[in-house]
Amino acid sequence: MTLRPFVEKFKNNTLKITNNKYHYKCINCGTQYESSEVQYLCPECNKQNNISSPPKGVLKTIYNYEKIAITKDFISLKQNNFLDLLPIEDIQSMPNLRIGNTPLYSIGNFENTDLPFDLYLKDDSQNPTFSFKDRASALVSAYAKENGIDTIVAASTGNAGSSLAGICAAQKQKAIILVPESAPKAKLTQIVMYGAKIIPVKGTYDDAFDLSIKASDEFGWYNRNTAYNPLTIEGKKTVAFELYEQLGYDIPDRIFVPVGDGVIVSGVYKGFEDLLKLKIIEKMPCIVSVQSAGSDNLIRNIGQNDFAIKKSNTLADSISVDIPRNFYMVQDFIQKYNGETLTIEDKDILKASSALAKNTGLFAEPAAATAFAGFLAYFERKEIKNDSKNVILLTGSGLKDINSVKDLIDIPKSIHPSISELKKLFR
Amino acid sequence: MTLRPFVEKFKNNTLKITNNKYHYKCINCGTQYESSEVQYLCPECNKQNNISSPPKGVLKTIYNYEKIAITKDFISLKQNNFLDLLPIEDIQSMPNLRIGNTPLYSIGNFENTDLPFDLYLKDDSQNPTFSFKDRASALVSAYAKENGIDTIVAASTGNAGSSLAGICAAQKQKAIILVPESAPKAKLTQIVMYGAKIIPVKGTYDDAFDLSIKASDEFGWYNRNTAYNPLTIEGKKTVAFELYEQLGYDIPDRIFVPVGDGVIVSGVYKGFEDLLKLKIIEKMPCIVSVQSAGSDNLIRNIGQNDFAIKKSNTLADSISVDIPRNFYMVQDFIQKYNGETLTIEDKDILKASSALAKNTGLFAEPAAATAFAGFLAYFERKEIKNDSKNVILLTGSGLKDINSVKDLIDIPKSIHPSISELKKLFR
Repeated sequence: MTLRPFVEKFKNNTLKITNNKYHYKCINCGTQYESSEVQYLCPECNKQNNISSPPKGVLKTIYNYEKIAITKDFISLKQNNFLDLLPIEDIQSMPNLRIGNTPLYSIGNFENTDLPFDLYLKDDSQNPTFSFKDRASALVSAYAKENGIDTIVAASTGNAGSSLAGICAAQKQKAIILVPESAPKAKLTQIVMYGAKIIPVKGTYDDAFDLSIKASDEFGWYNRNTAYNPLTIEGKKTVAFELYEQLGYDIPDRIFVPVGDGVIVSGVYKGFEDLLKLKIIEKMPCIVSVQSAGSDNLIRNIGQNDFAIKKSNTLADSISVDIPRNFYMVQDFIQKYNGETLTIEDKDILKASSALAKNTGLFAEPAAATAFAGFLAYFERKEIKNDSKNVILLTGSGLKDINSVKDLIDIPKSIHPSISELKKLFR
Repeated sequence: MTLRPFVEKFKNNTLKITNNKYHYKCINCGTQYESSEVQYLCPECNKQNNISSPPKGVLKTIYNYEKIAITKDFISLKQNNFLDLLPIEDIQSMPNLRIGNTPLYSIGNFENTDLPFDLYLKDDSQNPTFSFKDRASALVSAYAKENGIDTIVAASTGNAGSSLAGICAAQKQKAIILVPESAPKAKLTQIVMYGAKIIPVKGTYDDAFDLSIKASDEFGWYNRNTAYNPLTIEGKKTVAFELYEQLGYDIPDRIFVPVGDGVIVSGVYKGFEDLLKLKIIEKMPCIVSVQSAGSDNLIRNIGQNDFAIKKSNTLADSISVDIPRNFYMVQDFIQKYNGETLTIEDKDILKASSALAKNTGLFAEPAAATAFAGFLAYFERKEIKNDSKNVILLTGSGLKDINSVKDLIDIPKSIHPSISELKKLFR
């Protein structure tokens, strides 16, 4: 483990260590930084980064687990709004909105078959801007508030941007959102309605991503980019704490998570890892990273020497990513905790989207349907054990991108409003 | 008060009265019916109804208030899931979804001004299908489940239909939805995704409404039409119970409610009226019925001898109604409880929609923005008293109908992803 000079000094100062609630650790070189010292990537590793591969040097947020474990159990952590495990000081810094605390639904029957195991759907469309991303935006915004920052920038395919725009509106902060010009209309509409400055970019999400980082450097805006800002992972990890509580202080056997950049799945791993380090849980649940086969740049590259990009082409726009920004952290997590992976063809995403809505009343975005399709694939291959607990993360509302399911929508011809016309349909 | 023979008999049978949890009372002729005796409108009054004016004979659901009040206070009613005040027997009959229990947000600052009163937003977009209508659909579906009914039909401009479709999917019931062919695409998409049978009708919502009633008669389907089925009002009233609890067991001074057919506002009145009858509260809050000026058929006709229809033309599609189905009940409520009314021009609905999203991070459907515009009108006329408590009912997600705000959405031209291009924008 390399220690930079500053950290050497800090390491010899015990008082300083105990007074600091958290610090950062580079997942690449292992260097540790005080939280005041860096904001984004590990400065050393970032020097090696180039725009055509995932960044090295994403920071993991580390808390004083041993110290926390002495005085706190899960209940007392929860009573303190998990502030011991979040990089903010005061829960009042969070937006005055119901962030997270989303319902976990138990599904006992699917396609008229009683299931011999527990199937749970975590419905994160029930967030203020209708997606999981509010968990990250809220924490980033709260951090900004505590640190006197009033402008936040993000690159987004739509969900993260509409989330940041909504959260900043609630918090009286300025949001600047860079989007690929192809982003779905509903998400663009949300961004504009929330009063954010929207900047469509000729190019991909990755082009918007890189430009937003340059913009942060140039204009001093705080950057919410996923993974680039380590707080995005910390915000997203709260779902793990909720799952643990909602499952009666237990972990599930498997969690199916849609994966694009790899930050949501890192959040799930990180939340459970925090609980592991606190000895609240004894093992990591099996986390299944599910990607669209049309955008499998994260899964396909795991364990490979060179990172190879395949141009993304999938209807699941919010997980359509050429350069998965949190590739290295996800790879570490998967290798360390024996995580599983799976890719799903677009046609099966569509099928799963329809099956999910028809069987449960939950209309989810294609990314969420991708995770559900992952579960269906395991189910069909009889890999779901009886009496096991299985969770699927539904990351956003289907209303976010209705065009993606247009091939499923066959609206019949209009009829004249007469009972004789109606009878023809039901004969 | 007229009593039909059956009810006379029933009236003399004290045991029967006390054993029946609820009965119906016609708001027009006052006739009382056992709950098993009628399902929809008062049969007598319905004989006078014609398709070009609001139906007479909508039924109000009456509970044994005196009996309930002896043993139950608000807390014990809540602990029993308000089953004493709902026409179902078992809370397990409700869908396994988080219905209602939506957040109430306190807004302290608007357009950078600290407000000298309490402003609360009740965000009912946070329902499983993203609208307030889930409250009604869930209760109707639960009733159907308890009574062995497996097919439910509804006419809808979109929200009620997408709600019923989603709820029926969760409950394994069949939903048949008749929509005017002009209904917004997002809502049609939802209906189809949930697996309901959708039938677009050449004509208006009112044409679809009448046809669905004929279809119920013809095919024996249970009908969820708003007001026509008295349970729609009972489902919607739960919002009043939640408000009372969320405001610390207190009523607000004013509640702004968007009005089309008049069933949501009737639900709000009815919920508080139940609490009044139980002597849990001492007075009815002031309820402001807000309509779009382009569809003001309810408000304009209050106190008039003849009901005059003006063809609706408003961007707020979910409150665009020519024949307000619950006109007579709303008129009664407004006259009895000194309710207030207000109409809002489309341009002000749009302005309010934008102001709401920009100031609070809540992107609501135009109907909800109409209620917010109502509040803004009172605010501008300085009619909101200092220290008063004011609630605005946000009835659905803005994602339901993004086209309605298209005039507000000015997406700038795309830029090349370079810092020099970006600098031009921020010079």
